[in-house]
Amino acid sequence: MTCKTWAFEDFVEGGSIDLGTKDVTAKEIVEFAGEFDPQPMHLDEAAGKASILGGLSASGWHTCAIFMRLICDAFLLDSTSQGAPGVDRIKWKKPVLAGDRLNGKTTVLAKRESKSRPSIGLVTMRSELFNQRGEAVFELENTVMFLKRGAAA
Amino acid sequence: MTCKTWAFEDFVEGGSIDLGTKDVTAKEIVEFAGEFDPQPMHLDEAAGKASILGGLSASGWHTCAIFMRLICDAFLLDSTSQGAPGVDRIKWKKPVLAGDRLNGKTTVLAKRESKSRPSIGLVTMRSELFNQRGEAVFELENTVMFLKRGAAA
Repeated sequence: MTCKTWAFEDFVEGGSIDLGTKDVTAKEIVEFAGEFDPQPMHLDEAAGKASILGGLSASGWHTCAIFMRLICDAFLLDSTSQGAPGVDRIKWKKPVLAGDRLNGKTTVLAKRESKSRPSIGLVTMRSELFNQRGEAVFELENTVMFLKRGAAA
Repeated sequence: MTCKTWAFEDFVEGGSIDLGTKDVTAKEIVEFAGEFDPQPMHLDEAAGKASILGGLSASGWHTCAIFMRLICDAFLLDSTSQGAPGVDRIKWKKPVLAGDRLNGKTTVLAKRESKSRPSIGLVTMRSELFNQRGEAVFELENTVMFLKRGAAA
């Protein structure tokens, strides 16, 4: 028996889940980029301003990681998630700049039961992040596996 | 004039580029997960062993970030890259476990000149990571914009 709030049955096609808010700091941008994506526009304000991104901007992979933390805290950690085999599509629509405040939402596009594993259901989601001006900066679609309520893990 | 080694002209359809090697440590896995993906199997060896992943395993987003650092060091930092608008597809094919040694390669699937921006070309790539047993653990496809040789940035 699971005691998690979110099992397969709790996702509603067409429904949306608020992902909350994240302030993105220059320090975080530079730390992530220094380890994983040391391109100049992610490391240095002047290089960012000189680039098409227009300022010190987060690595696209940093934005993915920020999205993951938001979805973890919003519902994934309190769910019966069994993980995802991959991602169908990511769009980095606008730069994420130092000082931006991001908020997000996840919309359930479709759900279906697994044919091969009766304890599992598959939920296809579109997740979006927006900046403080309401501009969409990030979009991701993927399919996550969740145990049905009461299924043994 | 650009002095970078890799401009649009230097990518050959069907050609592959070695991405080198990365050892993945338990410490790195736990640090990344603690900040961005605090699911138990990414934080704790026992929880990882109890999960379908079979051990302390890197967040899928950590694997993406490792891939990004490899591709930066292999050629992207020494290229005329103008960034990528997104990702077409990611597959997390096998768990990446603490102690794994990853190596990677990028294969050029297709290239074409931009119609709207004559100084730019688009290179569609498939990148793969393999573990020390030669098993494919990660696959990503996306399209990156590169300046042509001699084009003004």
